[in-house]
Amino acid sequence: MFAGGFTGVILRVDLTTRTSSTEPMPADVARDFIGGAGVGIKYLFDEVPAGADALGPENKLIFSSGPFTGTTIPCASRMAVTGKSPLTGAVGMALTGGFFPAELKFAGYDALIIEGKAEKPTYLWIKDGAVQFRDAGWLWGTHTGDCQQLLKDDLKDQGIRVACIGPAGERQAKVACIINERRAAGRKGLGAVMGSKNLKAIAVRGSSEVGIADEAKFKAARSSMREEMRQSPVLYSAFAKLGTPMVVDLTGALGILSAKNWSETGVFVPVEQLGAESQKEVNIGRNPCHNCPVACSQIKIARTGPYEGTIAEGPEFETYYSLGTNTGVADQGAVIAADRLCDELGIDSMSAGSAVGFAMELYEKGILDSAATGGIDLRFGNAEAMLEVLRLIALREGIGELLADGVKAAAEKIGDEAGYYAMHVKGLELPAYDVRGAKAHGLNYATSYTGADHNRGYAFQEIFGIPVPWEVDRFSYDDKGKLCKWNQDVRSATCDCPTMCAFLLDTSLPATAPANTAALMEAVTGLVYTPEQIVDVGERVNNLARAFNAREGFGRPDDTLPRRLMEEPLQEGGSKGQLIAQADLDAMLDDYYTARGWDVATGKPGRAKLESLGLGYVADELEV
Amino acid sequence: MFAGGFTGVILRVDLTTRTSSTEPMPADVARDFIGGAGVGIKYLFDEVPAGADALGPENKLIFSSGPFTGTTIPCASRMAVTGKSPLTGAVGMALTGGFFPAELKFAGYDALIIEGKAEKPTYLWIKDGAVQFRDAGWLWGTHTGDCQQLLKDDLKDQGIRVACIGPAGERQAKVACIINERRAAGRKGLGAVMGSKNLKAIAVRGSSEVGIADEAKFKAARSSMREEMRQSPVLYSAFAKLGTPMVVDLTGALGILSAKNWSETGVFVPVEQLGAESQKEVNIGRNPCHNCPVACSQIKIARTGPYEGTIAEGPEFETYYSLGTNTGVADQGAVIAADRLCDELGIDSMSAGSAVGFAMELYEKGILDSAATGGIDLRFGNAEAMLEVLRLIALREGIGELLADGVKAAAEKIGDEAGYYAMHVKGLELPAYDVRGAKAHGLNYATSYTGADHNRGYAFQEIFGIPVPWEVDRFSYDDKGKLCKWNQDVRSATCDCPTMCAFLLDTSLPATAPANTAALMEAVTGLVYTPEQIVDVGERVNNLARAFNAREGFGRPDDTLPRRLMEEPLQEGGSKGQLIAQADLDAMLDDYYTARGWDVATGKPGRAKLESLGLGYVADELEV
Repeated sequence: MFAGGFTGVILRVDLTTRTSSTEPMPADVARDFIGGAGVGIKYLFDEVPAGADALGPENKLIFSSGPFTGTTIPCASRMAVTGKSPLTGAVGMALTGGFFPAELKFAGYDALIIEGKAEKPTYLWIKDGAVQFRDAGWLWGTHTGDCQQLLKDDLKDQGIRVACIGPAGERQAKVACIINERRAAGRKGLGAVMGSKNLKAIAVRGSSEVGIADEAKFKAARSSMREEMRQSPVLYSAFAKLGTPMVVDLTGALGILSAKNWSETGVFVPVEQLGAESQKEVNIGRNPCHNCPVACSQIKIARTGPYEGTIAEGPEFETYYSLGTNTGVADQGAVIAADRLCDELGIDSMSAGSAVGFAMELYEKGILDSAATGGIDLRFGNAEAMLEVLRLIALREGIGELLADGVKAAAEKIGDEAGYYAMHVKGLELPAYDVRGAKAHGLNYATSYTGADHNRGYAFQEIFGIPVPWEVDRFSYDDKGKLCKWNQDVRSATCDCPTMCAFLLDTSLPATAPANTAALMEAVTGLVYTPEQIVDVGERVNNLARAFNAREGFGRPDDTLPRRLMEEPLQEGGSKGQLIAQADLDAMLDDYYTARGWDVATGKPGRAKLESLGLGYVADELEV
Repeated sequence: MFAGGFTGVILRVDLTTRTSSTEPMPADVARDFIGGAGVGIKYLFDEVPAGADALGPENKLIFSSGPFTGTTIPCASRMAVTGKSPLTGAVGMALTGGFFPAELKFAGYDALIIEGKAEKPTYLWIKDGAVQFRDAGWLWGTHTGDCQQLLKDDLKDQGIRVACIGPAGERQAKVACIINERRAAGRKGLGAVMGSKNLKAIAVRGSSEVGIADEAKFKAARSSMREEMRQSPVLYSAFAKLGTPMVVDLTGALGILSAKNWSETGVFVPVEQLGAESQKEVNIGRNPCHNCPVACSQIKIARTGPYEGTIAEGPEFETYYSLGTNTGVADQGAVIAADRLCDELGIDSMSAGSAVGFAMELYEKGILDSAATGGIDLRFGNAEAMLEVLRLIALREGIGELLADGVKAAAEKIGDEAGYYAMHVKGLELPAYDVRGAKAHGLNYATSYTGADHNRGYAFQEIFGIPVPWEVDRFSYDDKGKLCKWNQDVRSATCDCPTMCAFLLDTSLPATAPANTAALMEAVTGLVYTPEQIVDVGERVNNLARAFNAREGFGRPDDTLPRRLMEEPLQEGGSKGQLIAQADLDAMLDDYYTARGWDVATGKPGRAKLESLGLGYVADELEV
C-alpha cells in the first residue's frame, strides 16, 4: 500500500479540449518506474505514437517528480520533463530543480501530462487540485523572469511557482528550454514542445503535505543519508562553495575541457579567468533548491565591462564551456551576461552556446560569410557578437534562424562541408567533456537515449577518479561497455527516477546509492526493494527509452560520435594524442550491447531482455 | 483617541550604531500633519540641521505612509520618502505606491526614520516589529528587480516587499531613485541619500491589521468615496484603460508637450507613435497598487526592434516625455526599454531623460563634442545612444559622470553657455508640461518646495479644464497666484499627507476632496476635522517646507523658470506664441506670496503666518 505522495496522482490536461482529469498512477507503474524520468518515459512510450510530430499536438509533455519530492529528504526537489524531442526525434527528457517540483507536489500531483494544443496562447493555473485554463495572450513575448513575476502579481500570490517558456519556446526554436525560477529543464528542445502547444506557462500553488508511509523508517533513512552526505570529501566543502564550476579546473587539468568548437581542446583553457579561483570575485550568494542543505547553485554578478551589474544563477560548469571556452570568450562578465540572456529568452545555454561556437568556426573558416551573419563579426572570442547571436537565435531572426534548431539542422542547411564541424550526437549538441580523454564518457555520449547527454550516464570514475564500481583508466577501452551500462542504469535508478540530485551520486554516494534509494522508497512509499531491484528500474528505463528510439528508427548507426573526435587527436594538455577511433568505438559498442543483452548488429533490445524487465508488451510493439 | 494604525508608531533606525527604537507619533504631529509628506517634512525640519550635507550622515531618510494605508480604502497604498535633496539642496520628498507602503504598515509602522550611515553595505529586514541589520555586501551592484528577488529568496519568503536602490544610488548619482516592486520614489535624488548611508535595501513583512476607529463611519466613508469614484467621467474608463499616457494626446493637442529639450514644443509631437492609440499594441496588463480598484498602471512590452520582449511598468506620461519626446525618440520599444533600464539601474526616468535631452541639444549645438560623449553619436532621436548614456549615468562612467548629478550641475561643469539649455528649477529637471501654455502650472514649477515638480500643485484646471475651485483661462495670469496656492495646499492636504493617490484629485474628486479626507480621517483615526481644517494641513506643510528651504538660503530669486521659457515663445501648435515673461512671472509671484501671506520681497513666511499655523517654533528658528 502506498502512502500519500506516492500513490501517484496524475493530472492529465488536454489543451485542445480545455479539460483536465486526475487518475491514480497504476501500482505496477509506480513500482517498476518509481517516478521522474521513469514515469515520463513510460507514458511517452505508451501514449505518443511512432512517427509523431514532436511539435504537433500528438506529442505530450510530462512533468513528473519523484516520490521524495516535497518531503524533508534533502536534494529531492527535482522533476523530469519528458516528451519526444524536436531536436533529436528521440526521447526528450530533462530534469530541473528549484521549487516548482515541490510546489506541484503540494498542489496534489506527482505527474502532470500535457496533451493536445491550445487554440490560443494559454497558461495553466493549478491550485490545490483546481485547474484553470487562462489566456496568455498578454504574456506572449515576455522573458521568463518577467513572465513569472507578472503571473505572481496577476494571481495576487507571490508564493506561486511558475514554469514557463520565453520567446524562443514561443517560436519553437529547437534549442528552447523551460524555465522555473532561474532553473531550466534545458536540453532537447522541450521549450519548443511547450511552445508548439501554445502553452506559455504553468503556475502552481499547493498547501498539502506529502504522505510518509513509515515515519520511523523515514527519519532513520533521512539521517543515514545526511550522515553519508557529511562524510563526502567534497560535498559540503569545495562543491558547496564553488558549485559545478570547480569542474572547470579539473577538466582543464585533465585536458578534456573543450574549446573553440572542439578545435583546440587543451590549448585554449582559460582556467584562470573562468575557473574556481575566479569565482571568488563573482559569487554573491547561493540559491538552494527546496530543502537542499548543500546549496551548490551560485548567484554570480558581472563586475566589469558593459554587463556590469548583470546577475545570473550560474553559469554552471557546462555553461562556462558552451558560452565560454567553446566560443573563445574568456570574460567572466560576458559569460554571466550570456547565461542570463539564455535564461531570460528561454534557450538552452549548452545547445545555443554550441551553435554559436559552431557558427564562429564556420565564420573563421570562411564557410559562413559576413552576409550570412548579417554583418556580425562572428570570430571566436567576440563576446558582443555571441550575445547578439544568442538573442537572434531566440527570436529566429537573421543568423539566428539558421541556428535556432541546433547545429545538426544548421549544418544540413549550410551543406556538407559544415557537417564536420557540427558537434552533436543524434542532433543533441555535445557537453563540455572532451571524451577523447574519457572513453566511457564518450561511449555514453554515443549511446545515451537522449543523444550526447553527459547526465544520463556520467562517468565519474573517469572524471573524478572515484573507483566505483571499479577503478578505471580513462584512456583505456577495456570494459567500458559494462561501465557505461552500470553508469546509465544506476543514474536512472537512483537519480532520474526518484528525482534525486545527480550531484549526490557523482560526488559522494555512488556505492551506496541503490541501497539508500531502497531505504528511502520503503520509508516514504512502503514499497520494498533490494538494491539490485532498484538498479533494475534503471535498466528497465534505459530499455524502454531505447525501445522508443528504436520505434522511431534509431539503431546502432546512430550510436556514434562526431567525426572530429574519431579523426583528430587532442593536440596538447593532459589528454594529448587521444582520440576515439571508429574501431575503438565499435569495440566499446559491442561490449556495451552485449552487457545490455541487446542485438550487437542492430543495437536493439530483444524480446528476452524486454520480457525479463516486465516489458513484454514493448517487444510486441517493436515486433522483436 | 487614535485607533491602531494612526496612533502613529515611528520606527527609528540608526545605521551608525546599528540600533533601532520605536516611539509614538506625538498627538499634535499626527493631528497637524496627518501623515505622509506632512510627517516627513515635520521630522526633516526638526531633525536635519541647517546646511547639512544631503549625502552625509546628518541627513535623514523618512518613509511615511498615511493613516489609510493598509486599510480597504482604495488608492491609499502610498508612502512619502523625505530627506534633504542632494539634487536641489531643498526639501526632497517623493511619493511611491505599490505594496511596500501597506506592508510597512502591516509590520507595525506608520513611519520609518533612517539615520546615520552604515559602515558597510547593509540592508534592513523588518518583520512584524523585529528589525535586523544585515550585510548587503553581496547585494551591492545588483539591479533593483534582481535585488528584490534575491532578498525574497534569501529570506525564504516570497511575500516580502522590498524598497531598494540600484547601481546609481550606490554611486550616489543625484538622479538616483528608490524602487519598490516596479514603482519609484523617483525624483530629487533620494536614492543617492540611501546610497550615501550604505543602505541597499529595506525588506518588510508584516501580518498585523490596521486599526479603524469607527467601523460604521469607515464603511460609510469608503462607500461614499467609491461612489464618487464611479461617477468620475474618466477614472474607470479612459484613465483606467490607458493610464497617464492618455495625457500625451491631451498635452499634444494643447501644444504643451515639451520636446527635444524644450526647443521644439508643438513641433515634434509624435502623438501617433507614443500616445493613446499606440498603447493598444503595447499594453499587456495592469498592475494595481495594494487595494486599488482603478489599476491605472500599465505593463507594456516592446514589440519590435532590438528591444523586442522587454517589458516595463510604464512608461507613464512623464517618461514618454523625458525618454521620448524630450530626446526625440519616437520609438515605443526604445522608450519602454529605456524606462525599464532606468528602473533596473535605479535612476529617475524624468531627471535622467532630461539630462540625456540636454546633452543631445549641446551635442547638436557643438557645445559637447564627440570626445566628451566618448564617441557616442548623441543626436536627438538616437535611441541606442540614449540607452547607453542612461547606463553610463547610473554607473557614473564617461559622459554619465558629467550627467549623473542632473542638468544644473552638468551645466556648471560645462560652462556658462550650457546653462541656458539646462531646463530645471532649483536643480530639479522640468516635468513634461510646457508651462508657457499653462501659467499656474508654471508658477507651481517656480514655487514648489521641491523644485520644478508637477506633483506638488498640479494645475488640473489648466490641463484638464476642470473648473475647481473656479474656471480658468490657461493663458491668463490673473489670480494664478491664488490658484497655485489652492492647488498646492489641497494637493498636500488630500494627497501627499494622507498618501492618497493624486490621480483621484486630478481626475475626479477635487471639489470634494477635503470633505472626503475629513470623513475618512474621522472614520479611521477618530480625529475630527472640518474640510477647511484639512486644507489648513496643506498650508501648514507648504509653510514648513518653505521654512526648511528658507533656512537653507532659498528665497524669491530661486522661484524662477529657465530663461528659455521666459524668452522663447512657443513656435507652433495649440500654445503658439506663448511664453512667461519675467514681468509676468513676477506679477504671479507677487499674487502668490500675497495669497500665502509671505513677504513679497523675500518670499519668506513671516511670524504671523507661521504662528497662525501653529508653527511659532519655526519662526523662532528662522528668526523672522
